[in-house]
Order: sequence, then structure tokens, then C-alpha cells
Amino acid sequence: MSPQPAERPVVAIIMGSQSDWPIMKNAADTLERLAIPFSAKIVSAHRTPDRLYRFAHGAKHAGFKVVIAGAGGAAHLPGMAAAMTPLPVFGVPIESKALKGQDSLLSIVQMPAGIPVGTLAIGRAGAVNAALLAASVLALSDEGIADRLDAYRTAQSESVTEEPVNEEPAR
Amino acid sequence: MSPQPAERPVVAIIMGSQSDWPIMKNAADTLERLAIPFSAKIVSAHRTPDRLYRFAHGAKHAGFKVVIAGAGGAAHLPGMAAAMTPLPVFGVPIESKALKGQDSLLSIVQMPAGIPVGTLAIGRAGAVNAALLAASVLALSDEGIADRLDAYRTAQSESVTEEPVNEEPAR
Amino acid sequence: MSPQPAERPVVAIIMGSQSDWPIMKNAADTLERLAIPFSAKIVSAHRTPDRLYRFAHGAKHAGFKVVIAGAGGAAHLPGMAAAMTPLPVFGVPIESKALKGQDSLLSIVQMPAGIPVGTLAIGRAGAVNAALLAASVLALSDEGIADRLDAYRTAQSESVTEEPVNEEPAR
Amino acid sequence: MSPQPAERPVVAIIMGSQSDWPIMKNAADTLERLAIPFSAKIVSAHRTPDRLYRFAHGAKHAGFKVVIAGAGGAAHLPGMAAAMTPLPVFGVPIESKALKGQDSLLSIVQMPAGIPVGTLAIGRAGAVNAALLAASVLALSDEGIADRLDAYRTAQSESVTEEPVNEEPAR
Amino acid sequence: MSPQPAERPVVAIIMGSQSDWPIMKNAADTLERLAIPFSAKIVSAHRTPDRLYRFAHGAKHAGFKVVIAGAGGAAHLPGMAAAMTPLPVFGVPIESKALKGQDSLLSIVQMPAGIPVGTLAIGRAGAVNAALLAASVLALSDEGIADRLDAYRTAQSESVTEEPVNEEPAR
Amino acid sequence: MSPQPAERPVVAIIMGSQSDWPIMKNAADTLERLAIPFSAKIVSAHRTPDRLYRFAHGAKHAGFKVVIAGAGGAAHLPGMAAAMTPLPVFGVPIESKALKGQDSLLSIVQMPAGIPVGTLAIGRAGAVNAALLAASVLALSDEGIADRLDAYRTAQSESVTEEPVNEEPAR
Amino acid sequence: MSPQPAERPVVAIIMGSQSDWPIMKNAADTLERLAIPFSAKIVSAHRTPDRLYRFAHGAKHAGFKVVIAGAGGAAHLPGMAAAMTPLPVFGVPIESKALKGQDSLLSIVQMPAGIPVGTLAIGRAGAVNAALLAASVLALSDEGIADRLDAYRTAQSESVTEEPVNEEPAR
Amino acid sequence: MSPQPAERPVVAIIMGSQSDWPIMKNAADTLERLAIPFSAKIVSAHRTPDRLYRFAHGAKHAGFKVVIAGAGGAAHLPGMAAAMTPLPVFGVPIESKALKGQDSLLSIVQMPAGIPVGTLAIGRAGAVNAALLAASVLALSDEGIADRLDAYRTAQSESVTEEPVNEEPAR
Repeated sequence: MSPQPAERPVVAIIMGSQSDWPIMKNAADTLERLAIPFSAKIVSAHRTPDRLYRFAHGAKHAGFKVVIAGAGGAAHLPGMAAAMTPLPVFGVPIESKALKGQDSLLSIVQMPAGIPVGTLAIGRAGAVNAALLAASVLALSDEGIADRLDAYRTAQSESVTEEPVNEEPAR
Repeated sequence: MSPQPAERPVVAIIMGSQSDWPIMKNAADTLERLAIPFSAKIVSAHRTPDRLYRFAHGAKHAGFKVVIAGAGGAAHLPGMAAAMTPLPVFGVPIESKALKGQDSLLSIVQMPAGIPVGTLAIGRAGAVNAALLAASVLALSDEGIADRLDAYRTAQSESVTEEPVNEEPAR
Repeated sequence: MSPQPAERPVVAIIMGSQSDWPIMKNAADTLERLAIPFSAKIVSAHRTPDRLYRFAHGAKHAGFKVVIAGAGGAAHLPGMAAAMTPLPVFGVPIESKALKGQDSLLSIVQMPAGIPVGTLAIGRAGAVNAALLAASVLALSDEGIADRLDAYRTAQSESVTEEPVNEEPAR
Repeated sequence: MSPQPAERPVVAIIMGSQSDWPIMKNAADTLERLAIPFSAKIVSAHRTPDRLYRFAHGAKHAGFKVVIAGAGGAAHLPGMAAAMTPLPVFGVPIESKALKGQDSLLSIVQMPAGIPVGTLAIGRAGAVNAALLAASVLALSDEGIADRLDAYRTAQSESVTEEPVNEEPAR
Repeated sequence: MSPQPAERPVVAIIMGSQSDWPIMKNAADTLERLAIPFSAKIVSAHRTPDRLYRFAHGAKHAGFKVVIAGAGGAAHLPGMAAAMTPLPVFGVPIESKALKGQDSLLSIVQMPAGIPVGTLAIGRAGAVNAALLAASVLALSDEGIADRLDAYRTAQSESVTEEPVNEEPAR
Repeated sequence: MSPQPAERPVVAIIMGSQSDWPIMKNAADTLERLAIPFSAKIVSAHRTPDRLYRFAHGAKHAGFKVVIAGAGGAAHLPGMAAAMTPLPVFGVPIESKALKGQDSLLSIVQMPAGIPVGTLAIGRAGAVNAALLAASVLALSDEGIADRLDAYRTAQSESVTEEPVNEEPAR
Repeated sequence: MSPQPAERPVVAIIMGSQSDWPIMKNAADTLERLAIPFSAKIVSAHRTPDRLYRFAHGAKHAGFKVVIAGAGGAAHLPGMAAAMTPLPVFGVPIESKALKGQDSLLSIVQMPAGIPVGTLAIGRAGAVNAALLAASVLALSDEGIADRLDAYRTAQSESVTEEPVNEEPAR
Repeated sequence: MSPQPAERPVVAIIMGSQSDWPIMKNAADTLERLAIPFSAKIVSAHRTPDRLYRFAHGAKHAGFKVVIAGAGGAAHLPGMAAAMTPLPVFGVPIESKALKGQDSLLSIVQMPAGIPVGTLAIGRAGAVNAALLAASVLALSDEGIADRLDAYRTAQSESVTEEPVNEEPAR
């Protein structure tokens, strides 16, 4: 997959498995909408630990500024990436089958003092929000992103109609 | 309290109550150790909502780059701050009496798509890590902070002795 | 939507999102059945904080006597409304996708001392009951509502048939 | 105990056991501060069901306008009271030994459609807030209470100092 | 419904709502298989508290020896029945929509010292087992039931085939 | 320990470990107060499985009528006893260190269809109630026990004073 | 079922019920892929305790080296097997209907000191992993298994493609 | 610390922090009692990821046969070790402050298919049992260990006295 623009990617989206992509794609789509170049890769902490090691140790040098990591169950990817890069890492708990993402959430958020992972909500909302949080970080030193993020937030506020609409089928 | 250096603060630590300070002070101490100027204020979402509105709407203009918000129970402070500032907001769930911070954690992390809060661990570890995450964000455009954060992390790794030590009192 | 009678509404139903309406409509329907005038609006604490601020600060002046607020996930709407109005606020936790409303419930009910939210059950039952609780409050100074509420409760008791019925399809 | 003023009590505080009184006393103290006359009784749903039936069936006739019920564990008192009185009932989950009030909370809040209990937070905060919620209900038709509640809330907001204070002992 | 034999019923199955019957019918079917006469009634603690009062106070006099009570959510029926009858009461937590019966289970099992409810598993298994537990109680003074229960248990053991069977459809 | 009267014991109290005795002793004391002869033994499902097999297979023949089994953590004792005796088995979840008895409760109550364990509350209340439930079972065919149980319950109701008492130290 | 090769089985897969087989079959398939001979039997701790007793006491003598036990709800099979055999026992929590395997997990993993069960994840992943853990144990003294396990793990790592693939249907 | 005998260690005990040693020492003591040579090291997945990579990749070559890994909170050590060694890995969830080890347990046990961690109970019991499980694995090819493990289990069974002892102080 290469959804990113021609520019060098500044956000790395990583995820533990192909099955996480339908959720993590929401992060990709949000970054795309904000015209923030990114890459998206599958990096399994458990099945490809060496790939994780190489990715995380090289992430800053590769020009990334923010890492977004999604994983489910005993979700070790965000925390292990954070252990090996000084970049800010934002974690997205993927909803798991039996425990509905409670395991994913606790595995990501309960990091010990010293290695932070900024954790977002379980599932789709978390993936969208990881991208928005990355944007707010990048906006600190990029006026273009700041403007586009402001526009996004304004549009979002304006899209909230005041009147609830009954969605009964027309007849 | 004015623990910050003479420089203009770039990190705002806010918390819902005086009783959160013993935990949130760990964020302050960590920022201090990294020589990152900050301010620390009590802003209660529930008891001082107007103060929250003024703070959050004005935070970017006041020169802050990152907001760290700690709160417990039905912890609305981080999410409401995030709703009113484009700055990155990092949330620290304070351990509550009955539910041990499970309520605080869910109230902070489960934000809907559109308004992110990067959430850290419950309690002291979370407060330290909120400061480190803020540092990693600021380090993206501040070499000094980047260097100090690297030094912090290196010292941290080196401090982990390999041999566990029995801590029985000498006799 | 304008389901309320011609009379000035005394109950304000607010909810965080259009997607909450299928649940919150049960509050509206129950008030309608009790002939209690109400309005229903979408007020998102996170996406439209200024709308929330205006609503809550003006709710009493607008003639409302009770606020019913429904929200899901990190549900801040009921508590923030309660922070800015002296009116009684009743909260309805909306069932969330991953955590089934446990996050919504704790985010609403675990308010700190000083700002109460009377919290109802997760989902449809909570929406119906928020309306009934509002009715019981209004009934304290409105004989008509008191009578209609009594009739509602009596009909409810009488509707409970003593014999369970097998619901196998006739053939 | 007869902490109430000479006036006829309008709020009934009931609780399942003498051991709940240290928590429920916070409701009593808050009502006292707001000069709202109340009574406080032990009514055990399980050990004195007949007392509960008499109390609940007679509460409205006795002149009460609001019932505050505190109970822990399999906490049936608030819901059973609500089943037998048309008055608004507010429930306070008492923290239980093993499950820390999670059982109390769910036993109180998860009422079926038809019989509402407005539920407050577990423990002391919930007891204070039950009194404040009762006050907000009574304030709808009592200007004096409305004024005193406003004063209470204003004082509460003003008491939140902006600066966190280190509480290290002077030397 | 009148599934019981001509004999005077010795087990009373009560449930909070018609919607509990598909689960509680498993108790009825199990009793029927053991030829234990029973009755099954809907008795809502919340919507028909007076019916509950009459039932429970009269249960022993009516000739019942065991009460089986099923309820969901804030499930008060088993505990309130136990408060008003000296007969053994067995509770069946019905699976609730949002919380999957965790609320039902805790509301039933966490009774205070003094009033016991012997609680079974959530849902169908619990309903079957309530009947079997009732049978084991009745078997203490009824040889016929003891024999039929032994036969039931023996048949059950023998029905467990040792070899797992693949259930792929034949072609 | 031989706290039972000279009569042949009819209730067997078993527990998984000596450390459960301070809780289970409450069952013993309650039976003693009701003059019901019992024995109390340590039978560990995990450390003494053969003792468990012998006990459970022989319990009915030994003249027991009810088994009360207390265990904590992965609490298998009540369910395994129930698997090997046709007698009614009542389970008492002992509060565990880390999970506060949530593991004990679920391990005991969630039995599959076919083998029931009537489960009581976690801890001391559960131990008292197991004894009372055993008494209610025995009372079905023993007028003396029925009378003593009635007296117990009456005394219990009468012991609930209506007025909460402030327990502040006299000065 | 006799899926095992001609060789004497070294792994015993046992499960509490036929309904566990669709999950436990994943353990069987994984062992088969690694050419490790095994048997698979239904042994219900609750419905066939004597079969369990015979199996567990005889497992070592029968030539088994590892026991894999799957069970759901109040899952006693793994722990009781471990109580009666010195062989390593690995437990697989089967997802239960209401509580989604949280009961199964705690019933298996929270064993007291003295009798260990190595517990795997809830459901299919746990069944696969029980087989892999058994393989890693057997590989300690069997080069062939060690080689096949290495090959399995290498293939697994290589199967993780780096690029996420959109799975939208071609048009 | 060098508690191991002169023999080459076959069990590696690793733990995330010095603070885990008081718990993990129970594994060491148990191995010592069984005369199984081991080493114990602090290897933090988060603070010393490179040490973890070196340890895990080299563990088999260093002569270890079993790895016991203890960690708390977002406990990534056992799973990451398992990802990089073909040896059996047993995980011990350390009780965490706020969430009492529920986070530790889920972070360790909920591993995805492909990389198993045999998980023991939270805390001290889990540490003892990890050692016993390691012993049962080693016993498969070491008669001496098998004999010592049998003796350990026999002594354990015999140590369970049948009579509970009242622990009231003598007077």
C-alpha cells in the first residue's frame, strides 16, 4: 500500500496484523484528509520482533516525527516501539474478540514510568484520533497543518446539527 | 506555586483538584528535570467550568504548546480541554478511591472520534510519562530538549542493574 | 424535530450525537405520553463545547426545569451541563460499541462531590426512566403531571400478567 | 437521631444499615447546611422488609418530597423504595468490602424501564451529591432553597484556588 | 401456563418479566423431567411490589418448599423474596443486554449477612441448575425424587461421549 | 476442631485451606447458634484431590444432608464436590488477595448446566448465609430448626434500630 | 475421533464438552502440522469426575508428556487435572456465552501455590498456542520437533507481509 | 545475586524491575528447593529493550531450557521474550498498584496465535507455580527432578491437616 503523497512521510502508522488494517485505515484516511504524508506498515511485535527492532531504532533517522501504533489483545507493539524510539508514540487499542479491547487498552496504556504511550480510544474512534493528535503535534511547527487542522475542527463543529432527525424510512 | 524557570512556560499542567497535586507533581518534577518551562494550575471542569473555558480557549494564545491534564473519577477535564484547544492534550487518570482509577481511565481515554486525548497510565507513572511525552513532542523542534530527553532515557536504561538485590536489612 | 406540544418546554433533552437519538427518543416518547412539554437537541460536549456552554448557562432562564442528557463513551455531557446549571440533571449512559456502556456509565455517575448527576441505567431503560424521574420531579408542583404519572404507574403494574406465556408460533 | 430543624422534613434519608451512616451522614450534613429539613432512618430492605413497605407506601403522605436511599452490596433499598412511591428517589451506592461498591452501583443504577432511581457516585461524594440533587429539585418551587443552593455553588467555585499548594511540613 | 402435574406444587418459579420466561422455562422443563410439581408466575419486584409481598409472605403457607427466582439487571426479586419467606430461595441471574448479566449476578449474589440467596450461573445453565438444586433439597425427604435425580445424573454422565465428533456437514 | 454437639453432624463445612477458616468459621458459628450439628474439615481440591474424592463420594452415606464449601482464587472445591455428591452444595467465595474474590465468585457460580452450586456472597456474609441457607433446607423436615430459624430472623429484624447513631467518642 | 498418527500419543488434549471441540480442534490441527502424536478426549470435570480421576492419575503412565485442557465457565478441568498428574498442564479458557471467557480465564489461571496450570489466551489463539507451547516443551528433548517448530516459527514470521492490503472487492 | 548452584543454570528467571524481585524470589526459592540451577536477572522490556533482545535471542544457546518472566502493568516482557526464543516461556503477572494485576494478567495471557506464554496466577502463587511448572517440564527428561517434584507434591498433600485450627492467642 502506498497511499501517501510524494512527500517524505512524517507519520509512521504501524499495526500488528493485516486484520488491524480496517481500523487503522481510519488513521490513514484522516491523515490523508489533512494532507499529512505517512506510511503504513505491518510490524508484528510477536511474529516479527526483528522488524520491530529495526523499525523503531531507525524511525527517527528515517524522518518520521510521530509513530501511530495499533494492536489488539496482549498489545505490545506501541509500548515496545516507544521503548526504542524517542519519537512520540500514540497507541490505538484494537477491539479483541473475547474481551472487546479491554485487554488491548490495558496492555497499551498501563506503561511504567519512563516510557510513555499516548493512548487513544478502543477501535475506530481511536484510530481517527491518533491521526488528529499527530496532526496537533505536527501543527506546532507547521502552519499549513495547523490551518488544515483548524478547518477540520471547525467543519466538524458545524456539522453537528442541532435537531435530531428521525430516521424512519419514507413511505 | 511557581516552580517554573524564568522562561515562558510551554507546557500547562492542569488538574481538577488540589488533591491531585501529589500525583501531578511528578509531571512537574519531570519537566523541571528536563528544563522545560511549565505552569501548574487547578482548573476544575465541574466546580470552575468558566475557568476551564477561559483557560482552554486561551491556551494556544498564551504560548503553551502542550497541555497535561490530570483528573479522577468522572474525569472530564482532559477531554473538555481538548474540545477547546487545538494543542495536543495528554491525560493522566488519577486513582480514585472506590474504583481505583478505572473510572478515571475510561472517562479520559474513550473520547469520541474528533477530539483526541493521549492518555497515560493511572497515577504516578502516568504523570511522569505525560511529561516525557510532552518532552518528546517539544523535542521535535527543540534540539536542547531532544538532547536532554536522550540523556534522560540513556540514564534510565543504565540505571537498570542486571542483578536483583535482596533487600533484607543488614544485621 | 419538534415533537413537543405548543406549551413552553420544561424538560430539555440533550444528547451528544445524532446516533444517540434512537435511544433518547424513548425519553421523548415517555414525556409525550405524560403530556410534558420538552425540547430535544444535539449538544456535543466535545464537538460543540460553546453550544453546550450557552445551553447550560441559559437553561434555567429559558424556562427549563429538568435537563436529561444522554451520552456514550467518555460521556462528559451530563456532568458538564450539571456544572453550569442549577437545574437537576439526569444522565443516560448510551451503550458504547466496545465496552457496552461501562465507560459511559462510569463517566456519568462518578461525579465528584459538589456537582450531581442523577444517573439512570444504560440504554433504552435509562432513557425511559430519565423521563419518568423528570415527571416525578415536576409532579411535586403540578397535580396534572402527578395524576398522569400515577395513571402510568398503575397501568404499568396492571400490565404485568401473572402467567408466563409460551411464545411458540401457532401452526 | 434528630438533626432536622423544627420544620416538617421534606427529604427522607434512608439507609440499609447503621454501618452506612458514616457515609450517609454527608447527605444529612449537606441538607443541614442548606437548611432543608430532613429525617434519617435505617430501613433494611432485607432485614426489615415490612418497615420498607410501610415507609415507601407512606412517604408521600408523610409529606416527603424526595427520598435519598443509601445501600451497599446487593443494594435493593433504593429500587424497592422507588417501586412503592411516586416521589423521586436518589440512590447512593455504599462502597462494599470485596467489590468496592461495583456491586452496589450496578444493583442501584441498572433499574428496568418503569421504575427510575437517580443514582449518584459510590460513597461520600454520592451522599453529598444526593443532597445537592434533592436541593435542586426542591429549589424548583422554593426560592429560598434556590438562593441557598446558588450560594453554595458560588462558594464552592470560589474555594478552588488556582495554585496547587505543596503540603510538605514546614521545618 | 399450567405445566405442573395435578399434585400441589412444591417449587415456585417466579420471574421479573415475561421476557425472562425463555430462560426460566429451562427450570420448569427440568422440574417436569424430574416429576416435581411446580408453578411458574411473573412477579415483578419493581412493577408489582405488592404482588411480591403477598407471594413471599404466603409462599410457605401455600405449600411451597423451594422458591426459584429469576431476574435481570438490578435484579431485586430473589433477594426481596428471601427477605420475606423462610423457604430456601435460589436465584437465577438473567443475561442483561448491555452488561451481559454481570449486573444481574452481583445484584443477586452479594446479599448481606442474614438473608441468603443461593445463586446459580447466568442464563440457561443457571435455570437448569436451580431446578436441580431444588431437586437435591427435596430429595432429602423424598425417596422418589432422590431416585429420579440419581437417574438424571447417571444419564448425564453416560451421555458424555469420550470422542469429540467433527460436525462437518456430510456431502 | 470439634465444635459440633454430640449429635451426628448433618452439615459438612469444607474449605480449601487453613487460611479460609477465619471466614468459614462464621458458617460454623451460625450453625452452632441454630443448634445444627456440623463438622468442619480442610479438603483441598488441588493439594488433596484424593481426600476430596473420598469425602464427596461418601458424604451422603456419612449422613450429611448439606455441604458448605468455601474456597478462593480458582475455587474448584464447591463445584467438584457437587460433581460427586447428590447433596445440595452451597459455595462461599473467599476474598482473594489481588482480585478481591472476583475470581473466587466466578469460579464457583458459573457452573455448567447439570451440576449446581448455590453460591453465596464473597466473604463473611457469604459464610453466614451459607449456614442460614442450609438451615432453611433442613427446616423443611425439622420443626425444631424451623422454629430456631424463625427466631433468628425475628431477632435479626428487631435488632435493626430505626435511628442511626453517631458514633463520635464522648468527651 | 482418531486424528493422531500411528505413533503413541505424547500430548493429551482433553476438554469439558463436545461444544469445546471447534476451539480445541485448533490445538489438534497445530500438533498435527508439527507431526506430534496426540489424542483428544472429552473429560468433563463436573459430569464425569471419575473419568477425570482415572485419566489424570494414569496420564503419565499412559505415556503422555503434556496435557492440554480446554474448558469454559467455571472451568475446573485444567486445575483438577494438574492436581492429579505431575505432567505439565496447559489450560485453554473457552469463551463463555455471557461473560465472554472472563470466568473461564480466572477459573483456570488463578490456581493456588502448589498446583500450576500454564494458561493461554481465551479461545482459538489459546488453543493454537497450547499446542505450540507443548511443542516447545517436547522440543527440549526431541530434535525433530525442535526443527519443525523452528520451521513453523520462521514461516510464520515470513508470512507477515509488510504492506497492509485493502480488501475491497474488485469491480 | 548468585543463588544458583555451581551447575549451569537451566531456568532463566527474568523480571522487569527490581521491585518485582520480592515476588519473583518465590520462584527462585522454589527452584532452589528442587535443586534446579537457575539464574535471575532484571531485564526491562521498556527501559532495556536491547538487553531483552540479546537475552532472548541468546537464551537457548546459553543453555537455558525454560524462561520464567515476571512483569506488571503493561507487562510486555514475557510475550516479547517468547517472540524471540523457541524455549517455553512462563509468565508471572505482578500485582500492580491501581488495577491489582488485572492489567498485568491480560497483558501476559492474551497473546495472539503463534507466540505462546504459559501464564500463571497473579503474584506470589504465580511465581511459585512458574517454578513448579518449569520443574514438571524439566522432569520429563530428568529423573532426579521428577523424583524431587514428586516428593514436593507428596509433602504438600501431607501438609494439609484435616482439622481447621483456631488461631486465637493462648491465655
